[in-house]
Formats: sequence, structure tokens, C-alpha cells
Amino acid sequence: MKQIKAEIITIGDEILYGQIVDTNSQWICTHLDELGIKIVRKVTIGDIESHILNSFSAAEKEADLILITGGLGPTNDDLTKPCLAKYFNSKLVMHEEALAQLKGFFDKRGFELNDLNRKQAELPDNCTMIPNPLGTAAGMWFEKGGKVFISMPGVPHEMKNMMLEELLPRVREFFKPEEIIHKLIKTAGIGESWLAEKIEDWEKTLPEHIKLAYLPSPGIVKLRLTGSGKSAEVLENEIDAEIERLKPYAGKYIFGYNKDTLEEAIGEILKSRNQTLAVAESCTGGFLSHQITSIPGSSDYFKGGIIAYSNEIKVSQLGVLRDTIQKYGAVSEETVAEMANRVREKYNADIGIATSGIAGPGGGTPEKPVGTVWIAYADGEETHTRKLQLVQDRLVNIRYSTVGAATLAWKSLKQKIENGV
Amino acid sequence: MKQIKAEIITIGDEILYGQIVDTNSQWICTHLDELGIKIVRKVTIGDIESHILNSFSAAEKEADLILITGGLGPTNDDLTKPCLAKYFNSKLVMHEEALAQLKGFFDKRGFELNDLNRKQAELPDNCTMIPNPLGTAAGMWFEKGGKVFISMPGVPHEMKNMMLEELLPRVREFFKPEEIIHKLIKTAGIGESWLAEKIEDWEKTLPEHIKLAYLPSPGIVKLRLTGSGKSAEVLENEIDAEIERLKPYAGKYIFGYNKDTLEEAIGEILKSRNQTLAVAESCTGGFLSHQITSIPGSSDYFKGGIIAYSNEIKVSQLGVLRDTIQKYGAVSEETVAEMANRVREKYNADIGIATSGIAGPGGGTPEKPVGTVWIAYADGEETHTRKLQLVQDRLVNIRYSTVGAATLAWKSLKQKIENGV
Repeated sequence: MKQIKAEIITIGDEILYGQIVDTNSQWICTHLDELGIKIVRKVTIGDIESHILNSFSAAEKEADLILITGGLGPTNDDLTKPCLAKYFNSKLVMHEEALAQLKGFFDKRGFELNDLNRKQAELPDNCTMIPNPLGTAAGMWFEKGGKVFISMPGVPHEMKNMMLEELLPRVREFFKPEEIIHKLIKTAGIGESWLAEKIEDWEKTLPEHIKLAYLPSPGIVKLRLTGSGKSAEVLENEIDAEIERLKPYAGKYIFGYNKDTLEEAIGEILKSRNQTLAVAESCTGGFLSHQITSIPGSSDYFKGGIIAYSNEIKVSQLGVLRDTIQKYGAVSEETVAEMANRVREKYNADIGIATSGIAGPGGGTPEKPVGTVWIAYADGEETHTRKLQLVQDRLVNIRYSTVGAATLAWKSLKQKIENGV
Repeated sequence: MKQIKAEIITIGDEILYGQIVDTNSQWICTHLDELGIKIVRKVTIGDIESHILNSFSAAEKEADLILITGGLGPTNDDLTKPCLAKYFNSKLVMHEEALAQLKGFFDKRGFELNDLNRKQAELPDNCTMIPNPLGTAAGMWFEKGGKVFISMPGVPHEMKNMMLEELLPRVREFFKPEEIIHKLIKTAGIGESWLAEKIEDWEKTLPEHIKLAYLPSPGIVKLRLTGSGKSAEVLENEIDAEIERLKPYAGKYIFGYNKDTLEEAIGEILKSRNQTLAVAESCTGGFLSHQITSIPGSSDYFKGGIIAYSNEIKVSQLGVLRDTIQKYGAVSEETVAEMANRVREKYNADIGIATSGIAGPGGGTPEKPVGTVWIAYADGEETHTRKLQLVQDRLVNIRYSTVGAATLAWKSLKQKIENGV
């Protein structure tokens, strides 16, 4: 079966100038990959007619499916639509269905269309209009010699909705792609090189059509197994069998698969044990709670938490003893252990997690430099603490501390299950 | 003066497969842009030798400076270094200085080098080694016919440190680039089309060498002015004068410039008024606190907050009346107003901000569908509330609600200043 190749073209000065991060192309890659379509290249160019037209012809040479995002806004710096019209030798004409949808969109919000908005309903006369119920720029589908060009808005939730509702089904129907299966194995609590050493013998015996890659990220190493072949079901079974073979080597570091997160793994354990969680955050400043509450259904086990950013709040709201903070400091094993214990009591939760550290750039001392972080887990019977020595960057420290706290909680909970308590 | 052109090549299957988001290239773009170097293309390809070598020669045709990230890890799927050696006709040899740094890195952490790690100190014999104090993969600098190739690790904080400490100064020295000045004007509380209409007359009279672009993002529209010329100082002054001319048209929507965030704008107002802030979050689940505490120095005005995820916690910890929740529901104007008022009282803060909504995907009802969110601001004298009707996506709703709450607080605080109170 022929491998379908795709290229993603992102159009926008704002991405080349670095003023926004392109999260769209990652999302598109994931979804094409699941269809077995190979993304051979991603290209980002600015709002310049010649660059846009050249990128279209370069992509047409390499790929079967060309996905274009951005440059469909109502203002004059948006050039994607006129470039598509030129490339496909067509004229921009008012598309009545697009105009009706646009009117509906504005009516619903109690606004009237202005001329700039109205122009968004003009489309090349040889494309298929793809509805955009969440925004004002319609999508476009062009076919040319067995290849497909798709143009979508750059606003992430509009693009995603359009892909899921309309475009992915059309792409599957058009190309009928072959099967590629990926599985991510997610580990915490071990570095990339050490993991690689532990699983070396297993890696050597993987069959030819199943490939392994290491994907490290803060505090977490993901192993990706990729199998290609004719039957998705056979591949799934083969990959699952390889994972079973892996477990004697590294099973104790695995917290989940594919899109599982540490916070989800914690949530699953808590649900199975009918337990609840509360957090007390100092240096992570809400990011740990955010990671926990990003999981749909987290309200089943997450009671909430306290952002105890000042010492005053640590004492008055959380109930840490003033003496503890005076004697050991706010960033100390003693304080963070009290934070975890007090928040579980106050919030009437089974488990408490806490963080306290110096995220930086200010606040460091010779004994406790920027990047010194204490994390704690408490369940009423045991309190586990750990010290992290991180770096100079505030946001990096917030992220690593959050992963560190989640890893500590996950390991502690798993230990309880293994010990049968 | 000749315009220096750059291309960024990102190497890694994991990015094409969509398993991680590429944030590096955005960061690199921002920093090259500040040097007046024009990024003409960004390309992402997989860990395949022929694709890597082809991307090098394609980039050499278009750009003067080629920046490569990724593929420098210790495992077998990392191909960047052997490809660079091949492309530059060189041999991989043990680099003693790189090896010494690697040993130091491991010693400091109390670990011993294994063979995989040791291989990371082998470098092509015709490159300049760029130290990586934060990690194990050294950077490389190659020169060829007046062009420069730079290879860096893909781990974001390692790459950033290497760029800031070593590479940007070397690039500036090597190319001596011409001047480009950008300024971002950041607005909240108005949509892109409406803003475009309001500032139309101003936009028409901008001089030829100063260009305008609209950069919309959730709840915020950024205007970017880009000027190019010989003198950075002259350009700065010209752009500042254009911004002064813009203010009569849209000044009341501007909350900051360049990297300013809404949370910083709020922080600046609070500091100038010697006031403090506390937050009570339900549907935003910690993300609002995270945005506030991402600002260095936020501990000066941010006391902390409560993540009141369950109704029980809203009543027991925050002090919302049980009657209010029973009569109006947790997602209501009445409840969110009480949340904002109670948190400022409990945390002894001047200002309280609160959110309560249905982030989804579950929890919607016909009267209050997923995406219904209430936000509130309270300062002891006044309470302002606003209802948002958002979409189906949990993370989008968390983000928009956070921006909405910050916008409400910023507008309310600014109103007080304008009213002289």
C-alpha cells in the first residue's frame, strides 16, 4: 500500500517573528499520524505572496496532502485566500452559504457584520467550502491531480473543530491510508540514559517493523513504539506483547500510556481507592492545581487547595506553625511536611501534596539558592518529602517542581497498593 | 545593508508525530528578530539521514544562518551529529574539553558516566564546540563560505542558555546585522474587527517603513508595529510617536507593550496603589493563580488563593453561604460575587477575583451549558461581575476564563484610577 505523505504549511509573520507559539501543527500531526499519514515536513513562512505561492508548489512536489493554516483573518495582512485563488486559477466570489453562516455567527452574539467581516465570506470559485461554526473564516478544500490542499483558520479551537467535524473524515475517505500504530509508554522517576541501560536487552530483540524512540521531557521519559503493517489489530497485539516483555525491565517506572498524564495516573488510583486529594502550593503558585484540574472529571477526587504564597497565609489559612517557619524557613522539609498534612486535614481529604521553594529569579540565599524546592506527600499515616535542586529559570522551576510533586505522590500511592494497604 | 536571512531546522520524529510541541523555534525567532535577522523559513523533519542532509543543503541555498535543534541525545535514534559530520566532511573525535565538562556535569550530580553518555563528547573535528553547562549534549558551530550552521540540543532550557550565553553574541559579531524594531501594543476587551474599524484612520496614515499587523489570541488583540531602517534610535522614536497618535483612537484598550501581560499590568497597578490581591478559583482550577505567579516579584502583591473545586470547600473554606449555592447554583452571579468578596476578607487582601463555571466536557445542563462561566472582581466598595458564554473545550474554557477574569480586574482597577479613587 502506498504511504500517504502530508506537509503542513503555517502562514504568519507572527510565528516567524516569534510572537506566538505554533501549537496547531503539533495537533494536526497527532491526528494525521493516527490515520497512518506520514508528515514529511512542516514549514512556516511569512505573509508574503511569493513565499506563500512557492511553498504551495514545493509542497505539491513532496506531499499528497497539503494542510495550510493561518492568514484567513479579515485584515489586509492576511494573504492566504488571494494566494490560493491565484494558485488554483480561480476568482474570489461571494459564497452565499458562507455568508449565511457568518451572519448567523454574528446574530447569535448580537453584533452586526461590518465590511471587513463580509469579505470573509468571499471564497475561490473552485473550492469546497468547509464550515467554521466557531469563527468567521470558512475553510477551503481544493483537489488537483489526486492531491488535496486544505486551508484552515489559524485560531486553534476553530481549526481543531473543523478538522474533527469535517476534514479528518473527508481525508480518510479520499486517501484510504495504510496502518501505522504508535504507543507511548510513559515513565517517571528515572533519567533517559539510565532507562536506556536498563532496557537495552529488550530493545535489541524488538522486531524490524516495530521501532523505539526516546522522548524526554521535564521529569518524564516517554518511550514510543511505532509499528507499521497491514492490520491495525495485529500491530496493536504485537505492540502490547512487547510492552508486556518490557515490564520486567522497567515496569516500576511506567505510570501510563499514550495521552495519560501523571495527574491522571494519580486520579485513577484515587478513584479506585475512593480517596480524595487537596494541595497546598507555594512556589508552584497554582500550576499543580491547574495540572490536576485539566483532567476532565477531576472534581470526583480533587477537593481543591490553597495557594499559600505568603508566610502569613501559610500560618493563618493553612495552619502551619509560626515556629516552624521561623526555625526552619518557609523553604524547608519541616514546613512543606506541615503544609501537606494541614491541607489534607483542613480540606478533609485523604491525601495532601505540598510544594515550597524559591522559583526565582529573586529570593535566593547562599544556603538556599534559586531552584531549591521541597515537595511533600501526606496521607495521615505517612509523610514523604523530597528536595529538588533546580535551575535559574522561574517557569522551568515551576514546571519541574510540579512534575516532582506529582511523581512523589504517584510513587507513594503505588507503594501503598503494592503493600496492600 | 544586506538583510541577513536565517532558517531554523528542527529535527525529531516526536515533533512530526505530534508528541511534543516545538516551543524552541518560537523562542529562537524572537531572539533573532531582535537582532534584525529575518527568519525566512522554519522546517521540521524526522530522524532520517537523507531528510536531514537534504534540509541542510536546501537551507544553505536560502539562508546565511542555519540553526538546527534536536537529535543530539545519547540514543541510537539521534542522527544530527553523524549527519553534520558527513555534511561537513569531517570525522567524529573525542573532544577533551567537552568530555571534561560532561564529567563535571555528572560528578556534580553524584552519577558516573556510562558509555552512551561518553559518546556525547565526540564531535566533528572541524566545528567549534559550544559548551552546554545545563546538559550533556554540547553545541556545534560550523562556518562554510560566509554562512554559519549552528547545532543545539532540543531540550528547551539547555538550548536557551546556550543561545543567550554563547551563540547570540557570536552571531552578532559574525554578521553585524541591520536594524529592525518591533513594538507590540497589547489590547484587551475588544475584538479584532472592531479594533480595526476604530483605528482605520490612524492605520492609513502610517509611513511606508512602519508596518502594522494584527495578532489575535484568546481575549487579547496585539498590534505589532515593525519599522526598518538604519538607526535603531530613530526607529524607536518614530514608533513611539505613532503609538501616541494611536491613543486617542484606542488608548483605553491598551494594557501594555511587548512582553507585558495582563497579570503584569494588574501587578503594576497594585504595586503603585500599595494594594494586595487574593483569588478564589473554581473552574479555572489554579490557572489564574499560575498566570499571576508566573510574574517574577508577584509575591509583593499576591497573597495567595483558594482553589474551591467542590461546593463543600466553597462553603467551609471560602465562607460562601450554603443558601446562595442552593438557591442560585455554584455557577451563578451571586456565588461568584460572594467568592470574590469572601476571599479578599479571609486573605486580608484589598482586591478579590473569582471564577466559577462549567469547563466541560461534563456538567452542563440546558440552562447552564458547558462553557457557562461567571467571573467577579471585588474591592470592598464595589463588586463587578461578568458572564462568559464559551465553547466545548475544557482547556480553551480554562484559558478564556482566566483572561476574562484578568481583563475584568484590570478594567475595574483602571476605572478606579481614572475616577481618582
